[in-house]
Amino acid sequence: MTTPATLVNGKAIDHISVKDRGLQYGDGLFETIAIYNNKPVLWDRHIARLTLGCDRLKIPRPDKSQLFEEASSLLHGIEKAVLKVIYTRGCGERGYQLPKTVEPMRVLQRRSWPEYSQQNKTDGVSIRLCATNLGYNTTLAGLKHLNRLEQVMARTEWPDYSQVFEGIMLDLEQNVISGTMSNVFFVQNNTLITPDLTKCGIKGVIRDLVLETLDELKVTHSVRKVGIKELYCADEIFITNSLIGVWPVNQFNEFQYAVGPITKRISKNIDALLY
Amino acid sequence: MTTPATLVNGKAIDHISVKDRGLQYGDGLFETIAIYNNKPVLWDRHIARLTLGCDRLKIPRPDKSQLFEEASSLLHGIEKAVLKVIYTRGCGERGYQLPKTVEPMRVLQRRSWPEYSQQNKTDGVSIRLCATNLGYNTTLAGLKHLNRLEQVMARTEWPDYSQVFEGIMLDLEQNVISGTMSNVFFVQNNTLITPDLTKCGIKGVIRDLVLETLDELKVTHSVRKVGIKELYCADEIFITNSLIGVWPVNQFNEFQYAVGPITKRISKNIDALLY
Repeated sequence: MTTPATLVNGKAIDHISVKDRGLQYGDGLFETIAIYNNKPVLWDRHIARLTLGCDRLKIPRPDKSQLFEEASSLLHGIEKAVLKVIYTRGCGERGYQLPKTVEPMRVLQRRSWPEYSQQNKTDGVSIRLCATNLGYNTTLAGLKHLNRLEQVMARTEWPDYSQVFEGIMLDLEQNVISGTMSNVFFVQNNTLITPDLTKCGIKGVIRDLVLETLDELKVTHSVRKVGIKELYCADEIFITNSLIGVWPVNQFNEFQYAVGPITKRISKNIDALLY
Repeated sequence: MTTPATLVNGKAIDHISVKDRGLQYGDGLFETIAIYNNKPVLWDRHIARLTLGCDRLKIPRPDKSQLFEEASSLLHGIEKAVLKVIYTRGCGERGYQLPKTVEPMRVLQRRSWPEYSQQNKTDGVSIRLCATNLGYNTTLAGLKHLNRLEQVMARTEWPDYSQVFEGIMLDLEQNVISGTMSNVFFVQNNTLITPDLTKCGIKGVIRDLVLETLDELKVTHSVRKVGIKELYCADEIFITNSLIGVWPVNQFNEFQYAVGPITKRISKNIDALLY
């Protein structure tokens, strides 16, 4: 028997009802989880974020042990992969009002590991500035919900990953928020800074892990509003997400950056925690 | 042979792939169309808006005659119903970047006509103010796209339709934008006013039709920024959408409103155009 690649509500199928509110309204959440040595990396943190998102969106919480069992059943003999979990409010009748009985829908998808160059981690990647902005919404800020058209439209601004890996998105007041699929950190006078995400953006699992380890590493840091000029003038820049971990930035538009000492220390420390 | 209720890419099935970007990111658009006397009402306008949305989101345009044929095949012997059209960017691999070849996915769903009381049109309905705001996004403003979590969250603020039919949503600067599922108009000193939707909101098909008929009806009007106090202090208020047409508002939070002469004229005129 082959290991299935997709489970929908625990069944080895790869389709959902057209009545699912995930399709109808983007009414749900998702997690993208690295699979390494047959295990989901930072599983508890991903599920904690998903659960927090459910509380914020008033969707019944997932059954954690059921999710873990289902994830495990997709990973038999799988060394390295990506596990995407989608969790929606389930099917409903027409209209925004919640169904009388909400039966959430879960999709677990195993996808192949992206073939990133090892140089990305050591030498860094090039990033660019996007013209598409992130809107404000304090109800939804921080959550990894399924309304992602802003990121999709930002990602259409440049054609491929071979030259430029990521695009930086600004909010409506031209503050730096994040990449389209990563969080961003930078060093300014030996202080590590990352944007405040109270009004928009996604609180990445690796972002939060980096922040929690900074005291131990004795890195002075600040989470605050960030102007675009500050990012251009940074001494070091790095980006984070669950698949890349920590990657230095060596170019941002026309400016170049060295892979600096603070980035190296954090990258090494996070790698030790993940693998 | 029974008439199917749902077509997915022309097939009488009621499910879509989990890889569809409509589910993954809300990467698509929709239309909600009234079916009356076996015909889709304002079909050309709905499809024109869908096509405009495709251009804005860089999704290949739909085949209009194919859509019409498919819609017709769902409506054999159907007097009154709702037709929902969902049109997405189709399946993709993991990540926001567009697929190399985009094959849009279309869902046509026939749903039963909501059993609205006839009194709603003659005597009006009660509406309320929502605490959930609409964020700004000039890239997406006006479009009926699938990222609708703001409306879903606003709709969770009150339990049922029996007392309060609709909730008014404000933007981030507390300007009135729309209802959760309708556009809003009001009369102030014999001038009809409706909010500007450049930064957020959905340009409803009935809203635009109302605006186009005002010169003929010799109703002075203005599309502009609207403060919440203006709406409270209005002489008349009405809401519009493709299923209700024009409905007067008789109560907005604690304030009451008569069904006024301008509302009556516009409602009568729109009804004549629709049915």
